[in-house]
Amino acid sequence: MPYYIGDVIKDSKRLIARTPEKFEETGVRVRLNTCVEGIEAERGEVLLAKGERIPYDALVVATGAEATLPDIPGTNLEGVFVLKNLRDGLNIKEYITNNRCRKAAVVGAGFIAMEMSEALQSLGLETRVVYRGELPVKKWDPVFSTLVLEELTSNGVIFMAHQSPLAVEKGSRARLSLVTDKEAIETDLIIFALGVRPDTKLAREAGLAMGESGAIKVNHSQRTSRDEIFAAGDCCESYHRVSSRWAHIPLGDVANKQGRVAGRNIGGHPTTFPGVVGAQSFKVFGLEVAMTGLDEREAQHSGYAPAGTVIWGTPVARSMGGGQRLGLKLIADTTSGKLLGAQAVGQGGAVSRINTLSACIWSGMGLDEIGYMDLAYSPPFGGAWDLIHIAAQVLKKQL
Amino acid sequence: MPYYIGDVIKDSKRLIARTPEKFEETGVRVRLNTCVEGIEAERGEVLLAKGERIPYDALVVATGAEATLPDIPGTNLEGVFVLKNLRDGLNIKEYITNNRCRKAAVVGAGFIAMEMSEALQSLGLETRVVYRGELPVKKWDPVFSTLVLEELTSNGVIFMAHQSPLAVEKGSRARLSLVTDKEAIETDLIIFALGVRPDTKLAREAGLAMGESGAIKVNHSQRTSRDEIFAAGDCCESYHRVSSRWAHIPLGDVANKQGRVAGRNIGGHPTTFPGVVGAQSFKVFGLEVAMTGLDEREAQHSGYAPAGTVIWGTPVARSMGGGQRLGLKLIADTTSGKLLGAQAVGQGGAVSRINTLSACIWSGMGLDEIGYMDLAYSPPFGGAWDLIHIAAQVLKKQL
Repeated sequence: MPYYIGDVIKDSKRLIARTPEKFEETGVRVRLNTCVEGIEAERGEVLLAKGERIPYDALVVATGAEATLPDIPGTNLEGVFVLKNLRDGLNIKEYITNNRCRKAAVVGAGFIAMEMSEALQSLGLETRVVYRGELPVKKWDPVFSTLVLEELTSNGVIFMAHQSPLAVEKGSRARLSLVTDKEAIETDLIIFALGVRPDTKLAREAGLAMGESGAIKVNHSQRTSRDEIFAAGDCCESYHRVSSRWAHIPLGDVANKQGRVAGRNIGGHPTTFPGVVGAQSFKVFGLEVAMTGLDEREAQHSGYAPAGTVIWGTPVARSMGGGQRLGLKLIADTTSGKLLGAQAVGQGGAVSRINTLSACIWSGMGLDEIGYMDLAYSPPFGGAWDLIHIAAQVLKKQL
Repeated sequence: MPYYIGDVIKDSKRLIARTPEKFEETGVRVRLNTCVEGIEAERGEVLLAKGERIPYDALVVATGAEATLPDIPGTNLEGVFVLKNLRDGLNIKEYITNNRCRKAAVVGAGFIAMEMSEALQSLGLETRVVYRGELPVKKWDPVFSTLVLEELTSNGVIFMAHQSPLAVEKGSRARLSLVTDKEAIETDLIIFALGVRPDTKLAREAGLAMGESGAIKVNHSQRTSRDEIFAAGDCCESYHRVSSRWAHIPLGDVANKQGRVAGRNIGGHPTTFPGVVGAQSFKVFGLEVAMTGLDEREAQHSGYAPAGTVIWGTPVARSMGGGQRLGLKLIADTTSGKLLGAQAVGQGGAVSRINTLSACIWSGMGLDEIGYMDLAYSPPFGGAWDLIHIAAQVLKKQL
């Protein structure tokens, strides 16, 4: 009889209603708030607290990832948070309400930091983003990061560049003080959004092989180095179809797909997870920000000879008013003409272009074809030459 | 010295400003409102009125298509229109204003008819769509055509099914009367939107080969059966990558691409037009309607063994409110699992899905891969499992 062992958040009625009961209906035994102490792989048993053991024929390790905290004093103070799971989100909301918070600081400038600063600012908190670099979302081209910065500041978020946190202390005018190498920032709430690392403790102790990325090594059927143990989600690697490397790509949609593949294989339906191309997106206030494939640095590192170009247009035909400005960057290999990556930012139409280009990259399409690819043209949805076509032709000329 | 011979609409300042002057700047001689009487292919000359001849080394035939009128009496009456070019549109607008029109009838129910009925209704005219069939836009699945019908009627357009026009006559209460096999419809304005046929008269007389579709036969470099004569746009065929047949696909974006390919080849830059997959879309009031690839009938006709499924979802993750209902139909080949076609209808997100699936069809991707394809997931733009993934997996089970 299959088991589900893990913690389900008790104060979220929706989750409790949807998860354990649905499992139980299908004959899955659910053990909530139960900690697994170890995997005894040779014996095929999972070790719980107080010596309890659960035998298995097949095991899925889905231990996820942990949000990283910097190694500075004071991160254990009340009011310091990370955002990894629903419980973190609920805790943050409760803290804000209970303490009538008025000021928040978000440390880091990746997409979780962007989403959090929008959420906090929208709740009425004076929100600061504290970042050691110059511009937010450094995976994107600086012209696009600059647009993200403008979107933050025009919505009232204060972006504090070139500052590294040194300590968290009790505040004087606010509840806390975030001490950086430049100043002390009084704030009621601090969220560290510095990325995640895979939670591989159980897997390592069980002797499972790790990949170069530090996440659990799996193959296309989500099997680990032991055939009967599978891993899925933020704790394991994914195959990147453009770099041809296994990488740690902790994203929710990837985790979902890997879980399904693991389950199907265990259930006797051989299924492979074909990998990822690095598609990702986020919204910050009115801006869509998306990318897929590799950036130039990653492409170089993967052995390609990349060239890139940024072009500007509109998501909608000029005859229909054009809409807001949309920027699209394409990165291609100068030797083969293959598309390696794409980035897009605008108030609309960015994610749509990136999804189409993800399918192109997935199939290894080159600029020649993409420049003439058949898209569903109609003036309310784009020009007769879409930004995709124009960008492909502009970049092709530069190769 | 290259020539451009054709008619440019005199009363449209924008076109005049953009087209002939730009041409002239680059050394192209522009002959406006000049009729070509014949192509003397053996002599390499174009024959104009009054015996004038223009010699050529390379010639592009871009004669477009003509909107079809039914073979019934009265279509020459004032107030009867087709909509093929900008001049038609301007004439219709002028007629409506000058005659203070209050009622309009659109004959036909394809996408031009849909766009026209929205335009007329939005101008305040009581608008009827008169159609011999049951539902509009018959290329789409009936569940989607039904949505289009609901969108028409909920916006006040009257859809008159199962009626074939027999004659146009002078009206009594309105300017005209559209006599059908069921009744006489009093209306001030009639637009016949019954499709187009390629204008191939010049090409036929010059001895150029025609394809099975009746349009000019071309190859991937847009050359006709004579190496020095090219054809591009609505007058010629395109290669359909799914049916593997040359077909007549008179769409603006295809015409643009073919024109560019012809021009590049003439200019000494060998370029091929890689064909189409049948991507198309239109907007009617608040609805996005899009398709790509083949429908089941076309797929069968092309030798595939098609299976299809329609699923319903939302363009945005449930946690973000979901947005309006979005329907997606996929059609795949039961023997190979290859995606052959897709259709989508909804208030948002339909065109975006169809463009992504067009790229999949372009590359010959199968349902296995599409079900796990990497898209730029973020709740404001879709679920962790996008409708594309779900539809691919549902259809895969049915094969």
